[in-house]
Amino acid sequence: MTRSVEGLPGGWVALVGAGPGDPDLLTRRAVKRLEEADLVLYDALIDPDVLSLAGSAQRIYVGKRAGRPAMRQELINRLLVRAARSGRRVVRLKGGDPFVFGRGGEEALALVAAGIPFEVVPGVSSAVAAAELAGIPVTHRGVSAAFVVVSGHAPGAYEPVLTTLAPQSATVVVLMGLASAGSIAATLTAHGWTPATAAAIIRGASTAGAELWTGTLAELASAAEQSESERPGTIVIGDVVRVGAMLADLETESEQDEAFGRAAAR
Amino acid sequence: MTRSVEGLPGGWVALVGAGPGDPDLLTRRAVKRLEEADLVLYDALIDPDVLSLAGSAQRIYVGKRAGRPAMRQELINRLLVRAARSGRRVVRLKGGDPFVFGRGGEEALALVAAGIPFEVVPGVSSAVAAAELAGIPVTHRGVSAAFVVVSGHAPGAYEPVLTTLAPQSATVVVLMGLASAGSIAATLTAHGWTPATAAAIIRGASTAGAELWTGTLAELASAAEQSESERPGTIVIGDVVRVGAMLADLETESEQDEAFGRAAAR
Repeated sequence: MTRSVEGLPGGWVALVGAGPGDPDLLTRRAVKRLEEADLVLYDALIDPDVLSLAGSAQRIYVGKRAGRPAMRQELINRLLVRAARSGRRVVRLKGGDPFVFGRGGEEALALVAAGIPFEVVPGVSSAVAAAELAGIPVTHRGVSAAFVVVSGHAPGAYEPVLTTLAPQSATVVVLMGLASAGSIAATLTAHGWTPATAAAIIRGASTAGAELWTGTLAELASAAEQSESERPGTIVIGDVVRVGAMLADLETESEQDEAFGRAAAR
Repeated sequence: MTRSVEGLPGGWVALVGAGPGDPDLLTRRAVKRLEEADLVLYDALIDPDVLSLAGSAQRIYVGKRAGRPAMRQELINRLLVRAARSGRRVVRLKGGDPFVFGRGGEEALALVAAGIPFEVVPGVSSAVAAAELAGIPVTHRGVSAAFVVVSGHAPGAYEPVLTTLAPQSATVVVLMGLASAGSIAATLTAHGWTPATAAAIIRGASTAGAELWTGTLAELASAAEQSESERPGTIVIGDVVRVGAMLADLETESEQDEAFGRAAAR
């Protein structure tokens, strides 16, 4: 059932998830495919240390950044097909996971229609890991037994879910949502979520410059606006944010205890 | 912000996600921590090849399997704290991701309360990867712009979400839900989801014996009952299942084309 390009002589495509950014969060299979690749088509925000695993492979940047256009998806699909047809081993490298808002499904359809051998290599998705690396569990016993992942890039993408989901019934994770933070907070509060619901913004998850803001739904919009960071942000809404805060507070206390212990031991 | 045990001399705990099963889907950091470990506390369904990365480390099985009790969570927490206090490097190895129904948050709270250095190593979660490895994207442009992940182990965990979410507004992923498949399908259809909604069951994702069933919400319950497999199952509900089916159909066609091409070329 699972497709694999393992051992194929060449002329294949691997749709590979690069995870949230830190090269140590690549899977072993992602590393293997990068090492085997002749060509890497990569998106924005891929760490240079990840790309360097591809050795002397040709690299083509196909991503978009705010204000700059991306290569059209059709063109990417054609590039993938043409390169594999000419016998090249192609890695299509995507941030996070290829099937979480990554258009990996469209590329898979194009590849299979063209008869190109391919595989999908799942990656660690920021949908869970951005919060996690900031100490916030998307699920926690007695606090949240479900989570919802929406894209913040257009109201049509999140409104059907956020206007119907029972208030506080699940952790809400918004990817690519900093620009819509105000509209998302307004949508939720208009549909019964209390403005005091805990919320967090994680920027640059898993990178050296990672930043965490925590507050409430009422404060979310201004917190999203105030940052000048261009790093992608993940929004997390729900009481699990308080579990993260408990972790941070306990840690501060235990550091103080330790400092106190050291002082007392002198 | 991100906690790490990198370079610490010992007396630490890493809460490590082992991914869906295949050892190649471990992250590089997970491998590193296993290689450094003196002690590994592991759950059910961890692949022996994953455990063997821990070399001569002591291994303690703390998971549960159907009908057999698990070690109590409190006892696991105490074990983690005691082992780290005695200077050992401890890996707490969990299937999937530690913060997706993995009780990792509880362990993190116990560790930080005890002043034990620890880190969380995210893993590839079955919430996305089980479907993905079967060719089903949890999101797909024009089909689904959101997904919901619930635990199927108790109605209280999934009812608040599944009884309110607008029908067909998101892909629904149910982890640990085979036993509740009938109740989940009934809940959804009672709340406006059409019985013809596409559904899939993936068992043993990423392992050699992976199995995929696809059908409709109306057929889900009997499909879940009929299997005698003891592998854990992931349920996926929504039109993205049809994208997976398109992939499979296209693949069959292109194999036929290829066979025809070969015959014609003779």
